[in-house]
Amino acid sequence: MTSKQYKRISSRMHKRAGNVGDRPGMIRVPDGALKPRIKMYSYNTEELVTSEGDNIHTVLDQLNECDKHTHWIKINGMGDAKLIEEIGDRLDVNDLVLEDIMNNHQRPKFDEYDEYVFATGRLITCNENCELSNTQLSVIVKDNLIISFEETYEDNFDGLESRLNAPKSPIHKLGPGFICYALFDTVIDWYFVVLNQIGEELEAIEDRIYEKADKSIMYDTQHLKRTLIVLRRASWPERDKINDMIRTESPLITKETKTYLRDAYDHCIQIIDLIESYKEISASNIDLYLSMVSNRMNEIMKVLTIISVIFIPLTFVAGVYGMNFAPANPDTNKRLPLNMPELYEPHGYLYCVGIMVFIGLIQVLFFWKKGWFNRL
Amino acid sequence: MTSKQYKRISSRMHKRAGNVGDRPGMIRVPDGALKPRIKMYSYNTEELVTSEGDNIHTVLDQLNECDKHTHWIKINGMGDAKLIEEIGDRLDVNDLVLEDIMNNHQRPKFDEYDEYVFATGRLITCNENCELSNTQLSVIVKDNLIISFEETYEDNFDGLESRLNAPKSPIHKLGPGFICYALFDTVIDWYFVVLNQIGEELEAIEDRIYEKADKSIMYDTQHLKRTLIVLRRASWPERDKINDMIRTESPLITKETKTYLRDAYDHCIQIIDLIESYKEISASNIDLYLSMVSNRMNEIMKVLTIISVIFIPLTFVAGVYGMNFAPANPDTNKRLPLNMPELYEPHGYLYCVGIMVFIGLIQVLFFWKKGWFNRL
Amino acid sequence: MTSKQYKRISSRMHKRAGNVGDRPGMIRVPDGALKPRIKMYSYNTEELVTSEGDNIHTVLDQLNECDKHTHWIKINGMGDAKLIEEIGDRLDVNDLVLEDIMNNHQRPKFDEYDEYVFATGRLITCNENCELSNTQLSVIVKDNLIISFEETYEDNFDGLESRLNAPKSPIHKLGPGFICYALFDTVIDWYFVVLNQIGEELEAIEDRIYEKADKSIMYDTQHLKRTLIVLRRASWPERDKINDMIRTESPLITKETKTYLRDAYDHCIQIIDLIESYKEISASNIDLYLSMVSNRMNEIMKVLTIISVIFIPLTFVAGVYGMNFAPANPDTNKRLPLNMPELYEPHGYLYCVGIMVFIGLIQVLFFWKKGWFNRL
Amino acid sequence: MTSKQYKRISSRMHKRAGNVGDRPGMIRVPDGALKPRIKMYSYNTEELVTSEGDNIHTVLDQLNECDKHTHWIKINGMGDAKLIEEIGDRLDVNDLVLEDIMNNHQRPKFDEYDEYVFATGRLITCNENCELSNTQLSVIVKDNLIISFEETYEDNFDGLESRLNAPKSPIHKLGPGFICYALFDTVIDWYFVVLNQIGEELEAIEDRIYEKADKSIMYDTQHLKRTLIVLRRASWPERDKINDMIRTESPLITKETKTYLRDAYDHCIQIIDLIESYKEISASNIDLYLSMVSNRMNEIMKVLTIISVIFIPLTFVAGVYGMNFAPANPDTNKRLPLNMPELYEPHGYLYCVGIMVFIGLIQVLFFWKKGWFNRL
Amino acid sequence: MTSKQYKRISSRMHKRAGNVGDRPGMIRVPDGALKPRIKMYSYNTEELVTSEGDNIHTVLDQLNECDKHTHWIKINGMGDAKLIEEIGDRLDVNDLVLEDIMNNHQRPKFDEYDEYVFATGRLITCNENCELSNTQLSVIVKDNLIISFEETYEDNFDGLESRLNAPKSPIHKLGPGFICYALFDTVIDWYFVVLNQIGEELEAIEDRIYEKADKSIMYDTQHLKRTLIVLRRASWPERDKINDMIRTESPLITKETKTYLRDAYDHCIQIIDLIESYKEISASNIDLYLSMVSNRMNEIMKVLTIISVIFIPLTFVAGVYGMNFAPANPDTNKRLPLNMPELYEPHGYLYCVGIMVFIGLIQVLFFWKKGWFNRL
Repeated sequence: MTSKQYKRISSRMHKRAGNVGDRPGMIRVPDGALKPRIKMYSYNTEELVTSEGDNIHTVLDQLNECDKHTHWIKINGMGDAKLIEEIGDRLDVNDLVLEDIMNNHQRPKFDEYDEYVFATGRLITCNENCELSNTQLSVIVKDNLIISFEETYEDNFDGLESRLNAPKSPIHKLGPGFICYALFDTVIDWYFVVLNQIGEELEAIEDRIYEKADKSIMYDTQHLKRTLIVLRRASWPERDKINDMIRTESPLITKETKTYLRDAYDHCIQIIDLIESYKEISASNIDLYLSMVSNRMNEIMKVLTIISVIFIPLTFVAGVYGMNFAPANPDTNKRLPLNMPELYEPHGYLYCVGIMVFIGLIQVLFFWKKGWFNRL
Repeated sequence: MTSKQYKRISSRMHKRAGNVGDRPGMIRVPDGALKPRIKMYSYNTEELVTSEGDNIHTVLDQLNECDKHTHWIKINGMGDAKLIEEIGDRLDVNDLVLEDIMNNHQRPKFDEYDEYVFATGRLITCNENCELSNTQLSVIVKDNLIISFEETYEDNFDGLESRLNAPKSPIHKLGPGFICYALFDTVIDWYFVVLNQIGEELEAIEDRIYEKADKSIMYDTQHLKRTLIVLRRASWPERDKINDMIRTESPLITKETKTYLRDAYDHCIQIIDLIESYKEISASNIDLYLSMVSNRMNEIMKVLTIISVIFIPLTFVAGVYGMNFAPANPDTNKRLPLNMPELYEPHGYLYCVGIMVFIGLIQVLFFWKKGWFNRL
Repeated sequence: MTSKQYKRISSRMHKRAGNVGDRPGMIRVPDGALKPRIKMYSYNTEELVTSEGDNIHTVLDQLNECDKHTHWIKINGMGDAKLIEEIGDRLDVNDLVLEDIMNNHQRPKFDEYDEYVFATGRLITCNENCELSNTQLSVIVKDNLIISFEETYEDNFDGLESRLNAPKSPIHKLGPGFICYALFDTVIDWYFVVLNQIGEELEAIEDRIYEKADKSIMYDTQHLKRTLIVLRRASWPERDKINDMIRTESPLITKETKTYLRDAYDHCIQIIDLIESYKEISASNIDLYLSMVSNRMNEIMKVLTIISVIFIPLTFVAGVYGMNFAPANPDTNKRLPLNMPELYEPHGYLYCVGIMVFIGLIQVLFFWKKGWFNRL
Repeated sequence: MTSKQYKRISSRMHKRAGNVGDRPGMIRVPDGALKPRIKMYSYNTEELVTSEGDNIHTVLDQLNECDKHTHWIKINGMGDAKLIEEIGDRLDVNDLVLEDIMNNHQRPKFDEYDEYVFATGRLITCNENCELSNTQLSVIVKDNLIISFEETYEDNFDGLESRLNAPKSPIHKLGPGFICYALFDTVIDWYFVVLNQIGEELEAIEDRIYEKADKSIMYDTQHLKRTLIVLRRASWPERDKINDMIRTESPLITKETKTYLRDAYDHCIQIIDLIESYKEISASNIDLYLSMVSNRMNEIMKVLTIISVIFIPLTFVAGVYGMNFAPANPDTNKRLPLNMPELYEPHGYLYCVGIMVFIGLIQVLFFWKKGWFNRL
Repeated sequence: MTSKQYKRISSRMHKRAGNVGDRPGMIRVPDGALKPRIKMYSYNTEELVTSEGDNIHTVLDQLNECDKHTHWIKINGMGDAKLIEEIGDRLDVNDLVLEDIMNNHQRPKFDEYDEYVFATGRLITCNENCELSNTQLSVIVKDNLIISFEETYEDNFDGLESRLNAPKSPIHKLGPGFICYALFDTVIDWYFVVLNQIGEELEAIEDRIYEKADKSIMYDTQHLKRTLIVLRRASWPERDKINDMIRTESPLITKETKTYLRDAYDHCIQIIDLIESYKEISASNIDLYLSMVSNRMNEIMKVLTIISVIFIPLTFVAGVYGMNFAPANPDTNKRLPLNMPELYEPHGYLYCVGIMVFIGLIQVLFFWKKGWFNRL
């Protein structure tokens, strides 16, 4: 996998839909939000009714009729403020909750109200091309009803849906609180998938460091660190949320569901552990990489410098015997016997070359004894 | 945005107005404080009366008359110790509170007293030119009255004011505790604005690192880190303050207001999360930058050194054949056949050039095989 | 011990057997799981019956017969989902517990249920070749029964088994809770063995740094850090687990066993202390190593550079006297007395060599006085 | 301010007066302790009596006489073990408290005893020359009496004393607990003064980094870090001490004093915040400084290396045409036309110079295109 | 003090005497344990009886006789398993306690049992040669009896012993709990002695950095860090132990002793503070050292490179005028007037030297203006 494949997960707050000083509870449609698609599952131990559409009226009317069913209204796409307001109106939901649903950058949390509970989480998924997406999942749980809000049309919960669709599934005996658990359990499962992938990349990066440390390692690790920061910012409050759900006294979260939630809580802690470990590993990868690069650079510089140094005295000797001190005075033609007599020796050249070889060998020997030819 | 645009936010304590050993509760006007401007909103569900002026007497007298209204006295500018003392006197406010109001470097906190509550926060704003300002907002809430103290004349709360001015606004039903919430909610909204800008700058800096890492990246990141330190020092106690407000048993903070405060608390935690993430990101930007700079430097040095090293042995060979070992003894004119016979070979020069080319190629080949021409 | 001997302990999550959105409590056999081998110890103060086999039916039937014995069913190998389901069925164990048993990457934990308790831990062992293995040990404790599940066939608990086999061992008086303690005490003993080995390697690495710092130190320390991360991720929850066991009110963990558990708790804290110390030591080893390498490199570069610098001016002087400024005009043969008269001096050469020696000595003296010949 | 102005604050434990295995509660005079000077304020709402002297007997006798006054006995200088013992005897103070008073390196703490309370703190002051001093302030509060012990004769509390001396000061209504608060409030005020100075120095250092980064920055920051460590070691327990005083149920600390103590507590937290921020800022200053130095060094090395590299091939060319391959065989005088024919070309020299210029320009162009002339 | 003086304190776990899966409570004699020496003090307010020997029987028999005395049995040397077992038998001490006494690597802890309390601590001492030793001190306190176990024969508690031997010492009024306190107070006093020495070494190292930074600083700081890690690992549980002793409800630790223990607790916190400060200081020493070394290296490289660069163009000029372009064609003897006419100018040589001087000066000026001759 190359460093180009990633889509940058922005870790910054996108511009919140609202402005400074806005009324709290103000509903604004986020930029680029999709038109809502509504899907509804109504089930009890005897039957399962599914309906699909985009008219929230029909759906809400159906609720009143089938009061012996458990209903799951699954809304994909947040592009319609009216729909949200209508739901808020009909189910008597606080404005602040509606604002949280529409605000795409909510922190995972669990809020209890008199008549209903509200929970939200970050759904972090990745597709086969390793592109991560970080969207919001919010749910409102009430009596015999759960409404879930997702930002995209992705089928992130088809596992749960197919379990619902299966005839005589044990899930049909369980209330909306269990659906709520099942949704967030899937969210947690996705974290494992993403972390698995990060773990593989970390090992791949480490292997690349040993094989051939190049600049892309910095980029890729930087990218992973960014992703881990995003995951960590999501997983800590996720853990707190699950914990709040376990400790709630609301009858909407039954004792049986809490057993499952404890399992989910364990998984959350495991995720947090993994994230912290991965952060340490990527930090130590960076250290290793930097040490490798500096080692290689040092290795190169050392070899090059040794070559230079060996030749510098030799070149000096050559330079000396290239001097033009004259054997005789040009004016008087008087012999100047002290001017470079070596040049006029029968074996001067051979001696000179010998001296050069000797100097070279001495140096090589000296450097070798000092251990400078060893790898660092 | 260049690094010159910033105004340094000083993170140090400015000289406190007081001196060592001063009486606690001593009121001193901070240096450069502005002359107070007073604005007053008196509202109930039926009417809204606004008045403006700079005489606190008139304002306080009006309080007694309209005892069925909720009053918001908005004071901009802290330049008048008498005004503060008068308020303290009339409303029976503790000296220590008055000192905190006048001291521009108070930490966010919430203090309960028998008759009133006191809260203070840091209002960190930025204008279009990205100039940050860090001033203090203090409020005293009492019965049907809230007094807010700001350091500057900036219209930081015009959102709230316009909601108040709107006829039949739901806000008219709510007491001074809600105004207090609304003020600090705006403070928190400003944090998001500032953090948004920091997030954008961090991404811009990261892009610049990949494109062209220059020294200004250190300066700009240093500046951002400084700003983040200031924000963090403000946001942690801000969170504690909001939490104290949620837990207070004072009747001045109603149950309804507490619902909103919980929302504000969530936002505070989100701000703290963001600040921590941004600190990590800026640290990892610095790491990336340093690695890039050292990489580029290494790249340059490597190329330059390789060029030197290739030429050094060649220059040595040239030096050798520039030696003047004589072909004959100048005295006896006897031929010295061992002195550099190469110079007198018919193809000596060609051989010599050939050897030089060979040495050069060998070196290039050696370095290439070692992978030293690869990018680091 | 060289760096090749290690088998990498992967610190990443292996692909969990399940998929996103799976039903919680779904039992899937992990890849490569071994066929279960069943061993059973049934003892009371009077007799000890051992049986071995691979048929869980016979074993469970035996339970009903010998209801005055304490039974330890030891299952090695998790390759048979049916066996697990059968156990779950017969003993009325929650599906989530069964899933945890089959999932090889469970975090250490202790869960209490109405009729039984469940505990799981990481069994980290090393053989004589220093190969680490990180497998899972799970136990279910019920009335007079303990079932332990291990992933491998290794005899990790032969110490405990031989104590059981010893006639009149005091262990025969103790219930299944004590066996549970004894199993996890052995797990903790293994941690000490592994940490001992890491401690020895850390000291060996430090010695190697002082003797001869080479690249393998980075690799080996990296490996140790990876192992420490794995150990830390296991030991913290291990400590919490033991603590939960001490605080449980379940009658399955008797007061006497708790005395022993407190001892185990102390050991856990000691392990955590050791891990943290070793992390610090390996970090400081890295610092020391990097400083040594950079020191040695600096030392080399300094010596080489000093050699170059000493010869550069000398070579320049030689170059000057190798210039061919002519003693006479070739056209007019007029003497040009100002063109390099030194060359025609009787002692020109000697003076020149003298000057060179002088320059060289001056430089050596200067560098020596500056302290540049000192070791860094 | 230069780095020479500082007096090193030693952060180590000075040799404790006592020895290993000494009896606890043993009183030993610290080395170099000053002779005690005693000052006494006795006041009630009606009158204020001041006396000075060095005889503790007279002072203690006066206590019994004026039992309707509040007394503050201010002792400067710890050089007299007898005086301390006498006080301990007369007021029935525990030996361990007396030992703590005499031990100059006590940690700030607040201890309650049946009849009295004991508090100690670090008085960290600086004079105009920025010399810091770290001495101990201990107080014993009893009924209507407070005794304070200082190490030096410095007038660190003249603010408080002048408030006491003022006629009809509100302080005259308050008991010894308030004096105790006022003393430690002054201690906290001094922390702000010292931190203010550190803040100014940090900004000055940062400015110096941008202007001209030299080695003294390391020294000065090192010094500041050392000072911050000392301050932090004093301020954390200081905060705990104030907190203990707020929570005490001793009647010696009245409810009114606790209001003031809460204010002091806020200041303590502010001090701790500031210290942590300053530590971060000094760390980031070091990073910035190191990056600047390495940048400048790199800049220099780059320029120098580029100059070398440009000349090396040129020197090689010159070397080639300095070779002495002979145009004719000296023995046979046969022309060797292949030996360096360039030397005998009419425009050989010009061509050669042209080639050199060309090589030089090519290199400059290449480096320029690579961006190596740009600032890093 | 040089770096050779230290004996390495091993921070790793030595091989525990036991093996994986051993029976808990198994007593094994540690390798190299000394033969026990027994000393016994029996005192009450009236008399003090001392006896010495190596027979535990006699000693234990004496206990029964003198049941109105307080007994301190001081055992030095752990080399005799039987002795320990006998004590365990006679006094009815739990096996786990006996195992902890024999295991030389126990963490400091305080355990309460029905009839007795058990405490253990690390006795870290240093002799005049700065050799540290890290041994174990365990005590069992029962009714009117305290038994202490030390590993060595060193007289670490002679202070306490001489206080006991003093006639009419106040210590004679106090029970075995006070002896227990006095022993651990001495342990804490030793920590101060060791920390004092470390503090002195840290200051010495810092001075050496400023004076002459060499490699030994890394070694020595590494050594100190190692020692600090050992101390920290001992002092944190030491603090917890003292705290447990303060909070115990066992009558063996009287209220009066608890007053003294609170004092010891303060000292523990002071020790922990000091250790953390020293860790920070040693980290900042390393930073300073590395910066100094790199500064000095940079300084050297800069000077050397500047020298090279100044000479390189000069050498090139010399090389140019050393070229042999011929003044005349050797075949035709035709004058080639464009071949290096400078060589035949009357003042060619002088001009050439002048140009060289000029180039050199220009460079020096340029580098000087750039500020490259300034110290970094």
